[in-house]
Amino acid sequence: MISREKRHNEVWFTEESTKHLRLSLRVTEELVRKETPYQSLLALETAEYGRMLVLDGAIQVTEKDEFCYHEMMAHVALCSHPNPKKVLIVGGGDGGSLREAVKHESVEKAVLVDIDEEVINTSREFFPTLSCAMDDPKAEIKPMDAMVYMKDHRGEFDVIIVDATDPVDMAAGLFQSPFYRDVWDALSDDGFMVTHIESPFTDAAIMVPAYRAMKEVFPSVHPYLGFMPTYPSGMWVYAIGSKRHDPSKPLREAPEGLKYYTSDVHKGSFALPPFLVEMLEKGEKVESHY
Amino acid sequence: MISREKRHNEVWFTEESTKHLRLSLRVTEELVRKETPYQSLLALETAEYGRMLVLDGAIQVTEKDEFCYHEMMAHVALCSHPNPKKVLIVGGGDGGSLREAVKHESVEKAVLVDIDEEVINTSREFFPTLSCAMDDPKAEIKPMDAMVYMKDHRGEFDVIIVDATDPVDMAAGLFQSPFYRDVWDALSDDGFMVTHIESPFTDAAIMVPAYRAMKEVFPSVHPYLGFMPTYPSGMWVYAIGSKRHDPSKPLREAPEGLKYYTSDVHKGSFALPPFLVEMLEKGEKVESHY
Repeated sequence: MISREKRHNEVWFTEESTKHLRLSLRVTEELVRKETPYQSLLALETAEYGRMLVLDGAIQVTEKDEFCYHEMMAHVALCSHPNPKKVLIVGGGDGGSLREAVKHESVEKAVLVDIDEEVINTSREFFPTLSCAMDDPKAEIKPMDAMVYMKDHRGEFDVIIVDATDPVDMAAGLFQSPFYRDVWDALSDDGFMVTHIESPFTDAAIMVPAYRAMKEVFPSVHPYLGFMPTYPSGMWVYAIGSKRHDPSKPLREAPEGLKYYTSDVHKGSFALPPFLVEMLEKGEKVESHY
Repeated sequence: MISREKRHNEVWFTEESTKHLRLSLRVTEELVRKETPYQSLLALETAEYGRMLVLDGAIQVTEKDEFCYHEMMAHVALCSHPNPKKVLIVGGGDGGSLREAVKHESVEKAVLVDIDEEVINTSREFFPTLSCAMDDPKAEIKPMDAMVYMKDHRGEFDVIIVDATDPVDMAAGLFQSPFYRDVWDALSDDGFMVTHIESPFTDAAIMVPAYRAMKEVFPSVHPYLGFMPTYPSGMWVYAIGSKRHDPSKPLREAPEGLKYYTSDVHKGSFALPPFLVEMLEKGEKVESHY
């Protein structure tokens, strides 16, 4: 009999970040796996990044690094708008962007509109650190189509956070100019729209067209950068479409207790490497590995 | 007979970034695989990131993203030192840090000291975009032990770039205070030492002790951040140990033609998220997943 090292059973989740790149995380427990009316939903406990939500094969949030993403989605726009009172979150059913938005004193109402109620319910059940603001008095949760909601709420919001999944299938429209026009219409006269436009390394074929579509609609569009370990390449690009104000200079201090965002991080995030500026502005032809 | 989709043969390289996290890249060609006197060396052509050098299982450089790392290793120190004439690179046998160092007009001599000549030779043969400055008139290549070299060159260098592999086996000492004292001794009176100290997400158990070891030796230590897609988590921490000057403010423009570094990127890279400051300064107990 051959002597061998004692091995433990291992379960791994693998994301196909592109056709040529994969990220794998060791899974210690499977929490939920289901088909919702809109997508394939998976919640896992992982050894490296805590609980993780996956939709249609793509990592959405992990407990350990989601603050990097949600703080940068919410506070850059909210700290540089002169007086944000009403905030709309499109998508973001996990509640992370909502949690950050209600931290601002000026914010009186934050509406989360996600088409998939199962995401909201899964977050309530398994991701309490993300969904914790869903019952906040300022919060309103609407499980419905954001396009429909926005057509009934024109000119109403100071900041709209588009916290969408990757632009495939139902979310593809959320990275195109007709959708950005609906967002424009739902914004007040000096509003900000903020969204993420993926990574220059792994998703240039999404990033560049999304940026240009925003520029077709907004007079000024301001890309900025943040670290996001469990998103492909870890280099995540956000963009603010502005009707009037300059979002690159914070007007007030951040809410207390943040882990990623500071006024200096805000300012620094608009310092873009030249290769990224060239991709965004100079029309470098980009190849898709999807 | 069951009809099935035509499948292509696929080869994948997988890095065990931690015990619980893996990054996999599709391999289109194996270029070289050998045991050097010091380490296991592998050079591959990948579909996503171009040519890739791997040492002891850890990704060292890829053609597509190495500029992020090498520009941040070299130019932050070199642009904020008043007059850097002599530069030493410890490790960095691929030549990337050397390539960046010789771009500075003030630099008269840049010495690369890597113990493993096979890394240097592999880079010369397979990574011309990295090794291209090895024959520059300012460059000097020394395949030897950097500790020995530094003991013979006290007080000589204005900037020392410690471009080491992960701190295991032979490189472990390069993240500890006795080594940093040797570096101190090899620096001129107003010199900078710069190194990388890994990621707060996946390597906190390396990052925190390395930072503290630098603080035992240098009167001021300045951590800063850069994106690095193929390193674990993509969030890479660098640190400059300074004898006199403040490296957070660039004193002159960057050399022309860079892809990552600008003066604004330089300034922004010192804006650290609060969670990182807390890990570095307040002694959060860190668990190792190695």
